[in-house]
Amino acid sequence: MYPSSLQRLIEELRKLPGVGNKTAERFALDILDRRDQDIEPLVNALISVHQSIKRCQQCAHYAEDTLCDICKDTHRNKSIICVVSSPKDVIALERSGQFRGLYHVLHGAISTMKGILPSDINLESLIQRCDESIKEVIVATNTNVEGETTAMYIAKRLENHSCDVTRLASGLPMGGLLDYTDDLTLIKAIEGRKKI
Amino acid sequence: MYPSSLQRLIEELRKLPGVGNKTAERFALDILDRRDQDIEPLVNALISVHQSIKRCQQCAHYAEDTLCDICKDTHRNKSIICVVSSPKDVIALERSGQFRGLYHVLHGAISTMKGILPSDINLESLIQRCDESIKEVIVATNTNVEGETTAMYIAKRLENHSCDVTRLASGLPMGGLLDYTDDLTLIKAIEGRKKI
Repeated sequence: MYPSSLQRLIEELRKLPGVGNKTAERFALDILDRRDQDIEPLVNALISVHQSIKRCQQCAHYAEDTLCDICKDTHRNKSIICVVSSPKDVIALERSGQFRGLYHVLHGAISTMKGILPSDINLESLIQRCDESIKEVIVATNTNVEGETTAMYIAKRLENHSCDVTRLASGLPMGGLLDYTDDLTLIKAIEGRKKI
Repeated sequence: MYPSSLQRLIEELRKLPGVGNKTAERFALDILDRRDQDIEPLVNALISVHQSIKRCQQCAHYAEDTLCDICKDTHRNKSIICVVSSPKDVIALERSGQFRGLYHVLHGAISTMKGILPSDINLESLIQRCDESIKEVIVATNTNVEGETTAMYIAKRLENHSCDVTRLASGLPMGGLLDYTDDLTLIKAIEGRKKI
């Protein structure tokens, strides 16, 4: 019903995650209502993101150079590596401001269900990074089955290395209500209780 | 925290209607995960939509030529014009398949609140279109204050023309529950009751 070029834009926008027909239509009509100069930044950003974003050669986080900004930063503690599943997790941890070491992004997690093997994710380079200079590897994968499996596998592979392998604490989320907390989280919270 | 070109894309995507920070981030990371050839159709669709979509010279609906597909269609009844606020309304009415006349898109509605005057919308060309060949003008603007104001204004302006000016029926939506219906809709439904 829409002219073909508008229909094509709607179909392309529908490929974005969580976007259905109605939302894609709304996006397309909004884009159409802008003036030409207002659409240029979006087009340029789309093109340049693919041209300029690579994976950091050390940690595989998004980078515009060979190394990402975190790996390039000389003020960070290079003896601690925090292992995460995705670049989004790096952003979340950086936002907390608590961690000052380096990262290693796996770009996935081991999954027997989905058939994702250790060789399918960026894991081998982590083992190679863990030489004598590394004192601790914090495994910050998700706390679901895939994340836990990956954490166990990493711990096993680094068994004979000199570094400690630790896992982020599990327990009650801050601001959470006890009676809304699931059983598994409660079990973890009790197991990990601390003297105050 | 993200590399600057990725951050720029996130900011551009956040300008889409109803898209916040988290959603824009999800869109940007999804786009980044695609391969180069998968991003091309989106970029091309964005560029071409601005180059090829114009307003139909007769009805102001979106068109790729001087006239839109509906105005070009020789099988449609050229003596009835349905007046709507936006191109989206044309799509909705076309989907129902009930109307076989032509359209006139106002691209807005008169609003005393927002200071939108009759001269700010595509209304003058409607009056000019209404010559002797037009038998009926169906005003299908929204049933809110702006839409009703616009409908009243159009009826007033076409008073001395030979064409009938009608309004879409108001009443209970199909599949609606009586006790969930607002008072104004009930009043309209009672007023417009019909013999069965």
